[in-house]
Amino acid sequence: MSHPAGDVFLADCPARLAIEIIADKWAVVVVFALSRRPCRHGELVGLIGGISRKVLTQTLRNLQGYGLVERHVYEDARVEYSLTELGRTLVVPIAALTEWADRHGEAVVDFQESQRDGADGR
Amino acid sequence: MSHPAGDVFLADCPARLAIEIIADKWAVVVVFALSRRPCRHGELVGLIGGISRKVLTQTLRNLQGYGLVERHVYEDARVEYSLTELGRTLVVPIAALTEWADRHGEAVVDFQESQRDGADGR
Repeated sequence: MSHPAGDVFLADCPARLAIEIIADKWAVVVVFALSRRPCRHGELVGLIGGISRKVLTQTLRNLQGYGLVERHVYEDARVEYSLTELGRTLVVPIAALTEWADRHGEAVVDFQESQRDGADGR
Repeated sequence: MSHPAGDVFLADCPARLAIEIIADKWAVVVVFALSRRPCRHGELVGLIGGISRKVLTQTLRNLQGYGLVERHVYEDARVEYSLTELGRTLVVPIAALTEWADRHGEAVVDFQESQRDGADGR
């Protein structure tokens, strides 16, 4: 199995910035939530368990700064956030991450618990 | 397009831990490097542009704590790190991330630069 595209990780190049974007748990969650449909700030707070309004605001600002999310203000002053065309391209790798988390997340938790139990038994 | 597995992001559940693991840029880079072959600490420093010995040590420790990386001490005191079976499962989502970075990383940089240029022009 070869990973020609993978060389971007091993050199100090602009592609690493892209990794830094998605290396933010909340950014990934917000992009995923917006991949379903445009949302208002309050809707996102409701959809995403455990995010504070402040962290959501900062995450949306960062995603706008990367060109991944757009902010729309409607005539009735309603504000909605949606993915840009570039933002929508992130859905594919995020789906791969999600599938991995779904399949293997529990195995990681189990391993950590087994380590903890071992330490307690000493 | 539906993302049934994606619900893990929107609820506060153990799968989110898995996201936190890969939400560390250096963890992703180290897993990718080890996906090629087992490596010594010094080899990894050489392969990965910009990582310090200290950050690499901490990253390897974290990955061992998650059950993703194993440390082997050979009879001649040589120490090598390799992916566990669980660690190897990460290669698929990492390949998806890498491909995205390779295709779209530049677009993000271009967008950021256009924003910066716009601000300078004011």
